[in-house]
Amino acid sequence: MVVTLIGTGNVGTHLLRALQSAGHETVQLQGRTFRCDDVRGEVVIVCVKDDTIAQVAERLKDTKALVVHTSGSVPLTALPCRRRGVLYPMQTFSKTREVNFCEVPVFLEAENAEDMKLLVRLASTLTRHVQQIDSDCRRRLHLAAVLACNFVNHCYDMAAEVLHDCDLPFSTLLPLIDETARKVHQLQPREAQTGPAVRFDQQVILRQEVMLAGREREIYHLMSENIHDYHDKL
Amino acid sequence: MVVTLIGTGNVGTHLLRALQSAGHETVQLQGRTFRCDDVRGEVVIVCVKDDTIAQVAERLKDTKALVVHTSGSVPLTALPCRRRGVLYPMQTFSKTREVNFCEVPVFLEAENAEDMKLLVRLASTLTRHVQQIDSDCRRRLHLAAVLACNFVNHCYDMAAEVLHDCDLPFSTLLPLIDETARKVHQLQPREAQTGPAVRFDQQVILRQEVMLAGREREIYHLMSENIHDYHDKL
Repeated sequence: MVVTLIGTGNVGTHLLRALQSAGHETVQLQGRTFRCDDVRGEVVIVCVKDDTIAQVAERLKDTKALVVHTSGSVPLTALPCRRRGVLYPMQTFSKTREVNFCEVPVFLEAENAEDMKLLVRLASTLTRHVQQIDSDCRRRLHLAAVLACNFVNHCYDMAAEVLHDCDLPFSTLLPLIDETARKVHQLQPREAQTGPAVRFDQQVILRQEVMLAGREREIYHLMSENIHDYHDKL
Repeated sequence: MVVTLIGTGNVGTHLLRALQSAGHETVQLQGRTFRCDDVRGEVVIVCVKDDTIAQVAERLKDTKALVVHTSGSVPLTALPCRRRGVLYPMQTFSKTREVNFCEVPVFLEAENAEDMKLLVRLASTLTRHVQQIDSDCRRRLHLAAVLACNFVNHCYDMAAEVLHDCDLPFSTLLPLIDETARKVHQLQPREAQTGPAVRFDQQVILRQEVMLAGREREIYHLMSENIHDYHDKL
């Protein structure tokens, strides 16, 4: 297939590599400078910051190609194009890290069966996990992804800050981090929960809270209360 | 070695299995009912809730054995015993899940070189990762572990709640969860961060915040602000 990809960020970089590995002919354009005339092929993938998708797609109004964005949170209808769709790869992409794209779940949306067929055909060359979901379901999925990935990584980062003070490398935590992730392959997170908050070990909770300051202390407090509440409901 | 283990919780259950697999002769006693006369062997491991360690150890005042607890947050000095130490296995243990104990990092503390030697000898039969740290370092490590494991798992749980509403199984998130954990083997968490908060994608952040209610909304708000702050410092 011939595919135009607009954008040079994390998602764009990884998607371009995946398209090329799958043997597609690709044209990569910059979001700021491209013109509609530069577009080649049947599908245009818009990989720009969520806030600028509509504005970039405005310049694609006249193309006959299927225009898709890659965002979890932006509805299909944000694209002011004749043929429109979504190809949302749910993964955390950094430029400095290789990702095995065949393992990335990709969620598709299109307005008609013909365009969906085209998207399924394209996505199936990139990954083994292709699923159709609508805009409302996708925005929930994206929120879940922010919680299970971005917030999780920030918990790692707050832990790294705590370890700075006692000369232990971050890698000390890796066996624990790995087991925490592996565990939810077998148990639901509710059953997998351990630690002072779920045991309601109030002395430990209070001692740990005062080791933190400012916003981290607030986060610690709210997370501990929330863990306790989730388990009180059982 | 002959070892007495007091307690029947998650840590006690896994530690007992590990001791037995390593060929030690073990006696397991209940925290509530045991008497000092029941103790056998050179080492007594107290695996009870943090809040009750001191109280349980009070009944071990007269033993000649080395008494150790397994808590991350309780100082060595909480044990009112003649010979005292700590053997803290940093892992998340649930009764319904097997753990490969040789991969569990174990952190040791003792008051004299003789007892430390004994503890190192014992711990080295259980795991390949044995390290000596003092009580102050251990309480920081435990806080880091709560952030990187218990809070991470709670983020998974909040994500599971969000998915309930759109008929997607929790397993949809597993490729993302796995990559998030694998990523910090290669990158520091600061570099690994992705998502709307670090991009400061305010429209997405606001839209996602209003999809949550109550304490979850507060947590979302504070975490997003904190991620942004960590990266603003760079």
